[in-house]
Amino acid sequence: MQIFLGLVFNPDDSILLSPEESKHCVKVLRKKAGDIIHIIDGKGNLFEAKLIETDPAACKAIIVSKKQIAPTKNYRLHIAISPTKNPDRIEWMLEKCTEMGVDEFSFFVCKRTEKPTVKLERLQKIAESAVKQSIQGIIPVINNVVSFKEFISLHKNTGEKKYIAHCIDETKTELKNILVPSKNIILVGPEGDFTEDEIKLALENNYSALSLGETRLRTETAGLFAAAAFKII
Amino acid sequence: MQIFLGLVFNPDDSILLSPEESKHCVKVLRKKAGDIIHIIDGKGNLFEAKLIETDPAACKAIIVSKKQIAPTKNYRLHIAISPTKNPDRIEWMLEKCTEMGVDEFSFFVCKRTEKPTVKLERLQKIAESAVKQSIQGIIPVINNVVSFKEFISLHKNTGEKKYIAHCIDETKTELKNILVPSKNIILVGPEGDFTEDEIKLALENNYSALSLGETRLRTETAGLFAAAAFKII
Repeated sequence: MQIFLGLVFNPDDSILLSPEESKHCVKVLRKKAGDIIHIIDGKGNLFEAKLIETDPAACKAIIVSKKQIAPTKNYRLHIAISPTKNPDRIEWMLEKCTEMGVDEFSFFVCKRTEKPTVKLERLQKIAESAVKQSIQGIIPVINNVVSFKEFISLHKNTGEKKYIAHCIDETKTELKNILVPSKNIILVGPEGDFTEDEIKLALENNYSALSLGETRLRTETAGLFAAAAFKII
Repeated sequence: MQIFLGLVFNPDDSILLSPEESKHCVKVLRKKAGDIIHIIDGKGNLFEAKLIETDPAACKAIIVSKKQIAPTKNYRLHIAISPTKNPDRIEWMLEKCTEMGVDEFSFFVCKRTEKPTVKLERLQKIAESAVKQSIQGIIPVINNVVSFKEFISLHKNTGEKKYIAHCIDETKTELKNILVPSKNIILVGPEGDFTEDEIKLALENNYSALSLGETRLRTETAGLFAAAAFKII
């Protein structure tokens, strides 16, 4: 089933598609006025809608029916991660984690982060595409890069359970023991791990040390693994 | 820690590196005779060894100490999957699943497989690199592509628990309910799913239908998700 992402949802039950989606709808899929198409709003709803305007820059459709499609989830997962040297790795992680229902992504720059940027617009497109593909329903929140210190400070007084998945040997909570219905932030460090100062800062701000198992996972694999673990709840 | 994969393990406690690893050792990392290097055998052991011959086509080292590094695992997971249209997706899946400890990979061609090949040598290299990177210890078995029918027939009388993760709505076992210490094969279909005939063939051969959750996962994400789930046991 081909799914479009709606751009504007009007009070008169009409939906506008973006120029990109409109072009795909009429130029590639050759949809005509009167055809029924499927549109999601990225907030958990799927609409059946009848195409009424086939402008390749602004398609318009009228809602025929509406269905809630977001799976019922009893947890919220926010993955905050250092950008990787090779941006493909973060992009892949974000795609897979979106399919697996991660709610929010943040990026922070640590001392050992090798490449302190992400392509935010590209990540947004990847997430939208993954949501359409997996009929996942809800587009995750994607936040731009901030410094590690700033990230910690921004989330100081939120009610989430907070974890830092660092690689230094010490007593840690096992991932399998935190898989309960709850709201969570998990911090994943860069290829060279967090520094001791960064870990100290997190621990002082109510983060608990989290173990992802005995083997050393790459940055993006750590994010994936946490996302999969929560999906199993 | 830089880790090499040993090629030949001699009875006199010497280890030979492959031409590729040898070149990397002496030309890139500029190791000299007398230096201590770390070598894995891909079977779960890590060796400290003293470099005695620095031939860039055949380095030789003498074992100083040996340590078993493969994590203790109480399950075995064999992922059998259709190649994807874009080979990157299977390669990424194999890398991540290797980091997460999958033991064996097989590839089969179904009716709806769009591209019926994999680059076996490339996959082998990716697995070796992932094992070195994650200090995972054991290199997974990677089998070449066969037809779906042949795969089913080849594994007819093995003692593994067998599952087929198809997307047709019917009563299925939930993934979380099979996460017990055991030996398992999980079949993952192509982008367009298994056909009804293929599912029937699997069910007739003692496979159980397996659900990976409410959302539709891409082929490679399904493999990843199963690997992560077992790692949590």
